[in-house]
Amino acid sequence: MSRIAYVNGQYQDMRDASVNVEDRGYQFADGVYEVCEIRDGRIVDMPRHMARLQRSLRELRIAEPMTLSSLSVVLHEVVRRNRVRNGIVYLQVTRGVARRDHAFPVKPVAPSVVVTARSLSRDKNEATAARGITVVTVPENRWPRVDIKSVSLLPNVLARQAARDAGAYEAWYVDGDGFVTEGASSNAWIISKGRVITRSAESGILSGITRAVLIETLAALQLTFEERQFTAAEAQQADEAFVTASSQIVMPVVAIDGQPIGDGRPGRTSLRLREQFHRFAAFS
Amino acid sequence: MSRIAYVNGQYQDMRDASVNVEDRGYQFADGVYEVCEIRDGRIVDMPRHMARLQRSLRELRIAEPMTLSSLSVVLHEVVRRNRVRNGIVYLQVTRGVARRDHAFPVKPVAPSVVVTARSLSRDKNEATAARGITVVTVPENRWPRVDIKSVSLLPNVLARQAARDAGAYEAWYVDGDGFVTEGASSNAWIISKGRVITRSAESGILSGITRAVLIETLAALQLTFEERQFTAAEAQQADEAFVTASSQIVMPVVAIDGQPIGDGRPGRTSLRLREQFHRFAAFS
Repeated sequence: MSRIAYVNGQYQDMRDASVNVEDRGYQFADGVYEVCEIRDGRIVDMPRHMARLQRSLRELRIAEPMTLSSLSVVLHEVVRRNRVRNGIVYLQVTRGVARRDHAFPVKPVAPSVVVTARSLSRDKNEATAARGITVVTVPENRWPRVDIKSVSLLPNVLARQAARDAGAYEAWYVDGDGFVTEGASSNAWIISKGRVITRSAESGILSGITRAVLIETLAALQLTFEERQFTAAEAQQADEAFVTASSQIVMPVVAIDGQPIGDGRPGRTSLRLREQFHRFAAFS
Repeated sequence: MSRIAYVNGQYQDMRDASVNVEDRGYQFADGVYEVCEIRDGRIVDMPRHMARLQRSLRELRIAEPMTLSSLSVVLHEVVRRNRVRNGIVYLQVTRGVARRDHAFPVKPVAPSVVVTARSLSRDKNEATAARGITVVTVPENRWPRVDIKSVSLLPNVLARQAARDAGAYEAWYVDGDGFVTEGASSNAWIISKGRVITRSAESGILSGITRAVLIETLAALQLTFEERQFTAAEAQQADEAFVTASSQIVMPVVAIDGQPIGDGRPGRTSLRLREQFHRFAAFS
């Protein structure tokens, strides 16, 4: 089946789905994005993703391209047209098309909107979770505004490729003080002495939606949550480790820089959180 | 006159010149670029720009899209078709189009190539140089790989906009130790006690082509060159200041953070360097 994308008002075959070469997303990475999970045909935690999108746009002073309810209609329509039952929907908004000049266009232009969706095999994801993933650490080298979910992702691309080159799945950034910030496209967690631990969203990370929902999940399951930073060495000695991301939910980590976590198999609590997560997520 | 762009093998009207929404330049800022001056219909210092392009591609492990001689033909053809006598030619190469995944495509795809050109008024540029430009300083917040001329330019966009918001023309980055690194899209220079000073290209800056040619110009004119870092405070007390960039050649700076440089007018040596520059540039 050919895939369908929404591009600036039109639903198009992916092969024809294109943006102008002077779109500021292409020349300056001047845009933001969101990725939502699709589960059983419904979009997971969309209101939270839309709220974060609004924040990213506000931080960059990009106008909202349409109302959130219109955007919601578009997301659902792209999911429907691509007949995605399980997978992800991707939304990108850039500042728009203008003659190349670093500063914002003096005469405002309409933001560009692109929405795509694709199926991901739930069985395959579950099989990955049952095996767990491996992580390597890389030096944090991104700009400090990682709280904005921008498409300025070249450092993340290189980090993820470094992981692949090392035979691993994800890269965890480690800051100058030795603390893990987050993954190239996920938040990093450990479980140690009965506590489920992740870094505060106050600095160094993107405030993940799956992260936020999981914090509520922990409370509901009466698990002890601790919001603090941890080093790679502490993570290697932890009982369990996992990452969160919309496309991965809760994904157990079984090794960090070659050091097995716990007994080297996905942790029981991690798997339980993965299983329970959607009870606490919102569907639309 | 409508403008013409080269996009992946075709010369197209700018309105139709487009790239796929899954071009990695659009979704990940996974690409590089060069800007060359066009002067009297010829391209300035193209071999050096091509050499730097090759280096950027190599650092990112992006394949060269075509031979340098073919690329040279394309650049000249875009200049010709747009009838540009004086202006700039812009070249962007990205990793290509692939289903969205941070890591490089497992099965390599063809890099995307976009070339555009546009006229700039030489009279207007000379008038700007005769007045000089103003600069504000902003905290350095880019990733350390600014030696790669990538399109991951969102921080530069925000810096340039901060300059405009402050009524200035360019923003100079100042690192954590108080030293100026470079401008949002230029190299920073001062002239102090008879010495023409700019930061070493070893760290914190892109190795500018105009910068490199100007260093040769200084030698030919028997001016004393000093390659070292300087603070914003030193720059404010300097006799002269200027920036270099392909689109601006040598552009005098007359104020930094509201503090006039020298007598607040373009410096004599800066203007002389601007005037002499093209004697030492290569034309093709």
